[in-house]
This record gives sequence, structure tokens and C-alpha cells, in this order.
Amino acid sequence: MKQIAIGIDIGGTNTKFGVVDNMGNVIISDSMDTPTHGDVYSYITDLSSELRKMIKSIDQINPETEIFGIGIGAPNANYYTGTIEHPANLSFKGVVPFVELLKKEFPEIGVITITNDANAAAIGEMIYGGAKGMKNFVMYTLGTGVGSGIVVNGNLVYGNDGFAGEIGHTMLIPGGRKCGCGKRGHLEAYCSATGIKRTAFELLSDLNATDSLLANKTYEELTSRMIFEAAQKGDFVAQETFKLTGKYLGQGLADTVHYLSPEAIFIFGGPTAAGEFIFEPAKQSMEEHLLPVFRNKVKVLPSGLKAGDAAILGSSALVWKEVVN
Amino acid sequence: MKQIAIGIDIGGTNTKFGVVDNMGNVIISDSMDTPTHGDVYSYITDLSSELRKMIKSIDQINPETEIFGIGIGAPNANYYTGTIEHPANLSFKGVVPFVELLKKEFPEIGVITITNDANAAAIGEMIYGGAKGMKNFVMYTLGTGVGSGIVVNGNLVYGNDGFAGEIGHTMLIPGGRKCGCGKRGHLEAYCSATGIKRTAFELLSDLNATDSLLANKTYEELTSRMIFEAAQKGDFVAQETFKLTGKYLGQGLADTVHYLSPEAIFIFGGPTAAGEFIFEPAKQSMEEHLLPVFRNKVKVLPSGLKAGDAAILGSSALVWKEVVN
Repeated sequence: MKQIAIGIDIGGTNTKFGVVDNMGNVIISDSMDTPTHGDVYSYITDLSSELRKMIKSIDQINPETEIFGIGIGAPNANYYTGTIEHPANLSFKGVVPFVELLKKEFPEIGVITITNDANAAAIGEMIYGGAKGMKNFVMYTLGTGVGSGIVVNGNLVYGNDGFAGEIGHTMLIPGGRKCGCGKRGHLEAYCSATGIKRTAFELLSDLNATDSLLANKTYEELTSRMIFEAAQKGDFVAQETFKLTGKYLGQGLADTVHYLSPEAIFIFGGPTAAGEFIFEPAKQSMEEHLLPVFRNKVKVLPSGLKAGDAAILGSSALVWKEVVN
Repeated sequence: MKQIAIGIDIGGTNTKFGVVDNMGNVIISDSMDTPTHGDVYSYITDLSSELRKMIKSIDQINPETEIFGIGIGAPNANYYTGTIEHPANLSFKGVVPFVELLKKEFPEIGVITITNDANAAAIGEMIYGGAKGMKNFVMYTLGTGVGSGIVVNGNLVYGNDGFAGEIGHTMLIPGGRKCGCGKRGHLEAYCSATGIKRTAFELLSDLNATDSLLANKTYEELTSRMIFEAAQKGDFVAQETFKLTGKYLGQGLADTVHYLSPEAIFIFGGPTAAGEFIFEPAKQSMEEHLLPVFRNKVKVLPSGLKAGDAAILGSSALVWKEVVN
């Protein structure tokens, strides 16, 4: 009997889903548009129909499979209650009992569980990735925003209400840049992919760097990947952007160590493609900010999850975590 | 059979010790000087002799007592290894195997365990104080410095190396005041009892407030209690000092919530005597800094432990925590 789990990742534009075995192999995967309007009921109906198709395909590939459960990663998802609460980027509003609705569609599936995407990524890292065997680690996900998942004593930290792990909204520079949440100075405003772009534009302006390779990009079109490519070509503004980002990120990482003293901090997301351009200054800055007792102890590592599969892997990992516990 | 635990609190000047029952009653307590020179062996010998005297007294009061263990709170103590590592304010240097040495003196006692004083205070709060029944809470101890203890899912967070929970050394204001650790801008430099005094002196200077009740105090003699008394008398500088301290503290509390989403944050230490002068602006500032999802959820409370007994209560609570687990 082959044991499998279904992972679903609900993003603002796409919903990805796939079937994963307990070794972290994505056997089959697909995606659909996340509806930009309409209520959650029609979305659940459409999603369930897609999942049934996928389950049928799996049965045809190998009739000896047993579905252990469905794991879901979604913005503002609450592990304790199985709800998605006031998601900013989804069309359904209020507090949606997502797990309950999906259980009605799949009463035969034992485990259906949900959390936010950064928490799912952390569990994915623990089950399939670089955090195997680690009891205390933290995951930063750098994208449009900065998400995070905290693992203490082998378990995800959900806090009292299910929403713990919002490191992206801790204070980095009081009175600093405006954050996506409306407040100023948060880590997310400096260390997300968007934050990196903002730093590049700040530097272009500060240095009046008309000779930079980035000087012919609009704010709209510039990406952290372009900045990385410019840095590889020796562009000063691009290289300085990563140095500054690393400095900012290192300050945040040091705070994380002072809170939690993890074995490692994993960084996931597009900006990690820049490799040592970002990791080197981040590690250096973290060490400079640390109390002596913590120095040279904590690893800062790129996520071991494959970027393309990470969302499905992370959400499917929730199932294995649930089954093991 | 009356079940008791011994609590020992090792401070830079005093070592306090006492016998506590499982209801949190301190049955007997005493103290000795913490030696300012000499090695740990003579200290262990002296301490053990004092403890034996205390155990004898307890036997005389009630021969039907059973000592469940010894809990120790000490600076730089490592729960995992039972060691005290490079303590800045104690005469013994290096890595001292404190628990091992004490076990040699008391081989008949089953549990001997150690952690730092702020962690001990957190466990004390959970066993005897305001955190009874809470699974997720954080303790801030405001004294010369700022210590902290983090409880997640009912257990203290020790991290990978035993030293987690150094919130006092997280960044509050980059490039700000010099902290006791040598770095700048840490929460401790603003929110400790010393930090409050620093804020008062900053304000006296900034406002050139010769008419303040604090204007006749030297830096050496000023205490947070004097500032509180001046605030009660309506002194503007003193009141403003607490407002600013609350603002600083609230920023730190909000970060704590963004990390851990606790049910409550407890504040322990001298400055809490100022009551609403400090709690009111701290709560207000915390709420202002929070993401909407966390607002009006997290309690900020004074510690429920009696100030005089707290050190012994906290360290003795380690024993009950160990026995229950």
C-alpha cells in the first residue's frame, strides 16, 4: 500500500494541488485559477471536482494507494479552527470554515488540515528538506511579503490564537519604510523581494547612479532577479543593494536568535537565488548583532525544498506531521 | 507526606534559598553572600552546608516531608547541560558544571535542575502565579537588565543550546543607546529599571527641566522608584519618562506578539510598581504596533509572584515542572 498525501496551496492568483508520497516525491500536480470574485462555496465545488479527477488518476497509476489526508496552505489560515480569516488577497471575505467545507466533500479522508503558507513551508522543510531531524528552527519566506514559520521542540508554534510567526511584521527600523500592512519600518519592507527592489531604487536615487545597469528599468518592471543578474555583471548599485539587504536581514535574524536560539534559519523564496550576494552579508550582519553566547552557532541556509514544488510539498507535509504526532 | 522543593537563586551579590511547598508557600528561607572571589568549589561547599542546615530545620518543623528536588536560577545557566557558562557577574569563570557538583553533595535528591532567573520566573508564574493554566505566555523581567522567559505549548523555550529567550537584547532602536552587552539600541537599554533612569536624565537634559522634582538627584542615586514617586506628585519629567518607557516597551511587546502570539505577557520587577504609569502607555503602544489580527487579544499583566519571594518561588517551580513532565 503506497501512502500518499494531497497538498493544496491557495495563492491570490493560483491554487496549486498535487499528490505527494511520504518521501517528498510529487507524483502528480495541477493548478487552477483562484477565483477573483464569488463566494467560497463555488470555489470549494470547483476545487473538489479537480481533486476528485486527480485522485482518479492516482488510482489508475497505482490502485494500491492510500490517501492519508489533505494539507492546505492559505493566507490567514488558522490551524486551530480550520478557518481562513479575512484574507486580503482572496475574494471570499470574513471567517471561512474551509476545513469543515472540504470535509463535507471528502468525508472519507481522515486528516484535513490547514495553516498559512510560511508555516506549511516550515513543516515541508522539516519533513522533506534541510530541517530533517531538527527540533528548533525558523523559516523565513521572502516573496512579495515576508512570511515565517517557527518550530520549537519539533512542533510548529501557532501561539494562543493560531497566528504566531509574523516575523515579517516585527520592527526593523522605527519610522522607516511603509510596510504592506500600513505600518512603518517592518522587516518585510526591507527584506522581501519587493523590499530589495525598494532598496535598489533608493540607492539609484541616493547615488544618482545613471551609469547603473538598473537605471533603465521602471519601478514596475524591476525584479529581484534583475538585480541579481546586474550584481553578477559587477553592477555597483545591484551589489550594494544585496549588501544592504543582507545587513537588514541579519539584524532580523539576530533578533530571531535572541528570541528562539534555533539550530538553523532557513530562507526560502526568489531572492535566495542571489546566493552569496545575499547570504554572505546576512550572516555577517547577524553575527555582528548577536550576543557572544550565540555567535558561530546558528546556521543560515537556503531552503532545501525545490522552488517549483515547495508550495505543494509544504502543504502535503502538514498531513505527515499530523499522522506522526 | 508533605512534598517540598528547594529553590536557590544565585545573584551577583546574594544567594537566596528556601523551601517551598507545591502550593507556592515559602516555608523557610535564608540567604548568603555570593562570593566575589574564589572558585566554585568553596562556594558549593558553603552553599551545601547552608542547605543541609535548612533541610534539618524542615525535618524538625515537619518530619513527614519529602524533598522532591532542587531548582536553581542563575545567570547564564544552561538547562540542557546543567552548567553556568561565563557568568559576567559571578566570581567563578568558564563553564561550571553546577548541577553535577551539587549532585555530588546531595546524591539522595532526585531532581536537581538549573536555568536562568528569567526562565525560572516564567515557570514560577506558570506554577504559582498568574499564568496558571496558560499554555503560551511570555515573561519580561525588568531589573538592571531585561530578562525574558518564553513558554510555548506549556513548556519553556530553551532553543537549540539552552539560551533562548534573550528578548532584552533584541533591537529596539538601531544605533540607539549603548546596552549593557556593549551593542547599541537594545530593548534592555530603554525598558530596564536602568533604562527608565536613562530616559529621565535624557528628558531632564532635553527639556532643561530645572523645576523637575528629579533635578536634584545625581545619576548615581536616581532610581525608578523615585521617578514613580515624582510621577505620583505630578512631576512632568517623571510622568513623561513613564510615557516614553511605555512607548518603547510597547514596541517590544508587539514584536513578541508577532513572533509568538501569546495569551499574555507578564512583566516582573521594580518598575511594575509604577502600575498604570507604565502599563497604560505600554499597552497602548503595543496595540498601535500590532497587526489587526492580534489587536485586543493579548493581556499585558504584572507578575502574580510576590516580589520578595519571587526568586525562590521561580527556582523551586523548576522542580514541580520537572516532576509533572
